[in-house]
Amino acid sequence: MKLLRHGPKGQERPALLDAEGRLRCLHALLGDITPATLAPAALAALARIDVQSLPEVPPGRLAVPWTGMGKFVAIGLNYADHAAESGLPVPKEPIVFMKTPSCAVGAEHAVVLPQGSVKTDWEVELGVVIGTRARYVSEAQALQHVAGYCVVNDISEREFQLERGGQWDKGKGCDTFGPIGPWLVTADEVGDPQRLAMWLDVNGRRCQTGNTATMIFGVAQIVSYLSRFMTLEPGDLITTGTPPGVGMGMKPAPMYLRPGDVMTLGIDKLGQQRQAVHAWDPALIDT
Amino acid sequence: MKLLRHGPKGQERPALLDAEGRLRCLHALLGDITPATLAPAALAALARIDVQSLPEVPPGRLAVPWTGMGKFVAIGLNYADHAAESGLPVPKEPIVFMKTPSCAVGAEHAVVLPQGSVKTDWEVELGVVIGTRARYVSEAQALQHVAGYCVVNDISEREFQLERGGQWDKGKGCDTFGPIGPWLVTADEVGDPQRLAMWLDVNGRRCQTGNTATMIFGVAQIVSYLSRFMTLEPGDLITTGTPPGVGMGMKPAPMYLRPGDVMTLGIDKLGQQRQAVHAWDPALIDT
Repeated sequence: MKLLRHGPKGQERPALLDAEGRLRCLHALLGDITPATLAPAALAALARIDVQSLPEVPPGRLAVPWTGMGKFVAIGLNYADHAAESGLPVPKEPIVFMKTPSCAVGAEHAVVLPQGSVKTDWEVELGVVIGTRARYVSEAQALQHVAGYCVVNDISEREFQLERGGQWDKGKGCDTFGPIGPWLVTADEVGDPQRLAMWLDVNGRRCQTGNTATMIFGVAQIVSYLSRFMTLEPGDLITTGTPPGVGMGMKPAPMYLRPGDVMTLGIDKLGQQRQAVHAWDPALIDT
Repeated sequence: MKLLRHGPKGQERPALLDAEGRLRCLHALLGDITPATLAPAALAALARIDVQSLPEVPPGRLAVPWTGMGKFVAIGLNYADHAAESGLPVPKEPIVFMKTPSCAVGAEHAVVLPQGSVKTDWEVELGVVIGTRARYVSEAQALQHVAGYCVVNDISEREFQLERGGQWDKGKGCDTFGPIGPWLVTADEVGDPQRLAMWLDVNGRRCQTGNTATMIFGVAQIVSYLSRFMTLEPGDLITTGTPPGVGMGMKPAPMYLRPGDVMTLGIDKLGQQRQAVHAWDPALIDT
């Protein structure tokens, strides 16, 4: 299933995308798509519904496909080809940092440059959505805790991340720095998460090309590993690192986002995103 | 006002502590203490209540004093005397990292060592609770966004934090690593947040002694600074760094927490905490 939320800010309604790409309203069945919706039994109940019986609705503004994200965890430097391109050693263990739940926005939301930002960059990534609590889970059992997957653009301000003292988090959680979706695609529909091609264009020019097959630490390893350092709860999101082609690594010189730029990005089976970049404007954040 | 939540897990009730140290039940007035409760108008309405009219209740298990924490942000190396003791340069800008909301527990909750942990450490810190949204706020206006303060023990696994690759967050968000409370003390009752003495004992031995007067970046600076990198929302918690005396810095050798150890800690006007340390046991986490 492809689950989503759409509609005006504060009035989002749950829906699913049918096989013909039409939106089918779930509002009569679900108040919203919450962490409880992501439990295996709840997803199984949804999957038994006759999609044709659901009312078709016109698409509204895309929101984050579920509510109640408690944590937005991120993995750094997780693609072997990206590490090689950067001339950096392959990490021995996953590098873990945090984005903020408050940076999460829908897949077509404006990306707003922070005040003073001159190094805002893109990162297409596979997002992993937790469906059941994971605490010290084995790699063999880890994928049973995954409700589904989504496209994430791990927008990053490189100066804030790397030149302002200490930890990466400072450049990762700015408002609008976490476009998610368009859909949460349930795990059964995705199959093997390590066979997904991914790409990102800026102004129509291909910048990133990759495949989750070249992840250093795969999804099962990441979920198992993280579950030893923090309990993963339903609704938590893990974004799993980016393949080659970010702006910081451009030759002969880095290239960063400017107002007017447009990013388009996608991952096999998970759909596409599109974001226009804007100079700082608070009115564009809360929309 | 000193606001708190107490009672069995999942059945917590809101209360306030009266001038005689008795618990007065707020349940008939408030369903719970939520981010909405922390808004200035809501706090002002609570302050107008005749405390003597509220029913006295016996104290139950202490919980986190409010619900709905969206972010648990932390500042590193923020005391001049701690930096000097550690032989580290004073940071030019606040060092920012993240704890997980899922690590937050009440002030007397068990602290459970993660599996394999040999370097779990303590950090008494001043916690700052956001009452109204803060986005690019000036230092002059920053304290208007603060609902109140609380004691935080920023429990840290130093091997996870410093020796397992990359970023500090890995050692900061384990279950039970964020004791908070006993109370949320409203800002009007605290006054100047830069004149608060603080201390922490392990097994009755004084380890940390400090005062918020020696913070490198004060509360107003921190709130203003952070608000340029992420929007602070009502219910968000910022823990503001620790004074000298953590286990990692002990001479002649570091000293870390072992099962059976007891931490007691406190901050002027904000009350005291007490935590017993246990070997890893999931039954002790969700209690």
